[in-house]
Amino acid sequence: MSLVDWDRGNCSVARALELIGDRHTVLVLREAFVGERRFDRMQRHTGVARNILSDRLNKLVEYGILTRRPYQERPVRHEYALTEKGLDLYPVLVGLMQWGERHGGGETPIVLQHKACGATVEPHLACPECGEAVGARDMRALPGPDAVLKQTA
Amino acid sequence: MSLVDWDRGNCSVARALELIGDRHTVLVLREAFVGERRFDRMQRHTGVARNILSDRLNKLVEYGILTRRPYQERPVRHEYALTEKGLDLYPVLVGLMQWGERHGGGETPIVLQHKACGATVEPHLACPECGEAVGARDMRALPGPDAVLKQTA
Repeated sequence: MSLVDWDRGNCSVARALELIGDRHTVLVLREAFVGERRFDRMQRHTGVARNILSDRLNKLVEYGILTRRPYQERPVRHEYALTEKGLDLYPVLVGLMQWGERHGGGETPIVLQHKACGATVEPHLACPECGEAVGARDMRALPGPDAVLKQTA
Repeated sequence: MSLVDWDRGNCSVARALELIGDRHTVLVLREAFVGERRFDRMQRHTGVARNILSDRLNKLVEYGILTRRPYQERPVRHEYALTEKGLDLYPVLVGLMQWGERHGGGETPIVLQHKACGATVEPHLACPECGEAVGARDMRALPGPDAVLKQTA
């Protein structure tokens, strides 16, 4: 047990979960990442009820993760695309996909191709200093500059 | 719009979300990853109600993501640790942390150190073929060997 502990009040994981910590939201993001932009297609592919899908899309726009723009005038219809903030969620989606594939039945419905080198690959987490692939055992979590330290029992 | 589409019935992201697609569950995993193993400390750090925490811990044990073992006899008390399957969720947690940090207020309560090279780093997603850092724009999703293809409207 560590003698120094830190407060979780400014936890980045918790902050991320406030915005996307919901199964339906992540399914909508999955659709956005494979290029689906329209309500009906997202609805069909996720199986999420229309009112819930509508709510999640509105929230994702409100959070700046998706943008909405009209693609048809009468009646007005909108499509949704990932913003830069949304695109930054890519590692989370890839992580879920790889874990679900490895531990959830072994099927591979989707593969990822690195456009630059053409290889079909499983991107992995790597250390930007030395380039090595890293996993949980290779890394240590330390209090950072904004850690609120406290003594533990 | 693509002419060929695939069925999402065997989607790996959806499969992962069936097990961990819940905000409380991910907060429990966060605690496990920073080394907290005991109910009371997890409860204090997550603020999750005791009955919900108990439910999520039981489910995570059932799914093989955590193991439970006694650390005290009278009364019997258990602690929880990540299994290999659980440790494999590391990229997901790191992804959420980095995104929450970048887009959720900019505070850095935790930093990660690569044990092997000693550097305090932000691990990134990289291509295992060429070693380059990759993001959403660098990658293409293609139907894989288990894709169930279908014609689209």
